[in-house]
Amino acid sequence: VTADLPAEFFRHVQAEICAALEAADGGATFREDAWERPGGGGGFTRILTDGRVFERAGVGYSEVMGALDPAFAARLPGEGTRFRAAGVSLVLHPKSPMIPTVHANFRAIDKGDTRWFGGGMDLTPYVLDATYYPRLKRWCDAYFTLPHRGEMRGVGGIFFDYLGLSADEARLAAGAEAMHLVERAVPHGEAFAFVRSAASAFLPAYLPLVERRRDDPWGDSERNFQLLRRGRYVEFNLIYDRGTTFGLRTGGRTESILMSMPPLARWEYDYQPLPGSPEARLIDAVRNPREWA
Amino acid sequence: VTADLPAEFFRHVQAEICAALEAADGGATFREDAWERPGGGGGFTRILTDGRVFERAGVGYSEVMGALDPAFAARLPGEGTRFRAAGVSLVLHPKSPMIPTVHANFRAIDKGDTRWFGGGMDLTPYVLDATYYPRLKRWCDAYFTLPHRGEMRGVGGIFFDYLGLSADEARLAAGAEAMHLVERAVPHGEAFAFVRSAASAFLPAYLPLVERRRDDPWGDSERNFQLLRRGRYVEFNLIYDRGTTFGLRTGGRTESILMSMPPLARWEYDYQPLPGSPEARLIDAVRNPREWA
Repeated sequence: VTADLPAEFFRHVQAEICAALEAADGGATFREDAWERPGGGGGFTRILTDGRVFERAGVGYSEVMGALDPAFAARLPGEGTRFRAAGVSLVLHPKSPMIPTVHANFRAIDKGDTRWFGGGMDLTPYVLDATYYPRLKRWCDAYFTLPHRGEMRGVGGIFFDYLGLSADEARLAAGAEAMHLVERAVPHGEAFAFVRSAASAFLPAYLPLVERRRDDPWGDSERNFQLLRRGRYVEFNLIYDRGTTFGLRTGGRTESILMSMPPLARWEYDYQPLPGSPEARLIDAVRNPREWA
Repeated sequence: VTADLPAEFFRHVQAEICAALEAADGGATFREDAWERPGGGGGFTRILTDGRVFERAGVGYSEVMGALDPAFAARLPGEGTRFRAAGVSLVLHPKSPMIPTVHANFRAIDKGDTRWFGGGMDLTPYVLDATYYPRLKRWCDAYFTLPHRGEMRGVGGIFFDYLGLSADEARLAAGAEAMHLVERAVPHGEAFAFVRSAASAFLPAYLPLVERRRDDPWGDSERNFQLLRRGRYVEFNLIYDRGTTFGLRTGGRTESILMSMPPLARWEYDYQPLPGSPEARLIDAVRNPREWA
């Protein structure tokens, strides 16, 4: 295992994003909790609560290392069970239903002598504005899905994993799925450069959405629908999310892993939007992936 | 696969429990949705919403059959992949934080020529009353746990699985865990009688709690804590619950499987109750299993 994981870069991304979000919020500031992982490593979790714009914003940095349990290790690329992982992840739950929830994460993993990068970002809007999300959508539709709902979690974004592996290693690691991702990604050797550029794209992509939407009026109907869609967000994160699974299986700090949970979420039995309503248009968009760009 | 699963009994239990809950609620009534499973079978989902006592009450009956995917089938007792399962399950989310949430389910499964029974019930109170839960607690502490939280979901109840298997079959099915449950359960051959008696125990055990607690006053503080504990309920059901997993993996109807989700749930980063508060006592109880009886 090499020692030069781009941990410093991820910690820098965390600081930069938190500063920009505090400025955008104009109310609350981030609290930082340092934590240590019993098996090795630790992190810094930053949480902003009850701001003017954000009901909750969590931006986590971690660098963990040690030994994976053998059954889990066997499903990942690289030899043996020793690993080291560093990354930054964020989830923003705005108060206003007019501003989409956003998730982003970028990580680098070493296992044995193998290193790869993964990450993504995706938008979870509550009010669909088809003219307004043209920038981010690439190939995440295949990942951020709730098969049991026949829905995507959001309207799209980007997702990637196994970047930095050779084609042979990627095929070995996760078969058809990895090849699909890797083939549409970047040349072997440019993985970290790609991650740098993707991470840098987050603030300029998201902050204009906040600015444009922050003063839009909304009422109970928008709020209720926002809470219902947050319920879907919870379903994805607890049933499918790769980062959550990896974190819980490797003994990460539960509060830091589950900082992505929304402050409030709602479930309604057999919810059906009114035909032709804005809610119906949004549900149509998450059921039928579109090419926004 | 024999054709005489006690499906009629489970459907009868559903009717009886719904009638009693409607009477206890005194406001709303159950709506029934019939559904069919594409692979075979179906069910009847009954939901009561926005009642005087219950914010949501769901009582589901289903009988499903067909072929399991081979990898999943290999982890269950019995030969081959053909199965038939019938059961009843309920989750009650009372409006008042003074009345505990309760979950119960009873099921019978045939796979190949092997039949077994499973089920349980457990209480998830929001206000701890140590004098009031002496009846149900048996051996469910080992099952209804959130390892990532170091907590149980509730304060206890009963849980059982693999009832009806011989000791050899149970050892083969799930090793030490099954033996632990089976050895403390009932003689081989009396499994269905045990399930009948456990199902009959639900109403007399729970309705007195409702009656005793329904007029207790409560405020924002109790409500907020109720919503936080409901968040833990969501975590258990989506990450660990055997019925949810079985249902989603065997193509059950998502709305019927996830009727157990609470109407509203809350997550707070790194919540810590005030030392000595009622909330602190409850958290102590779910972290440190007790013998109530």
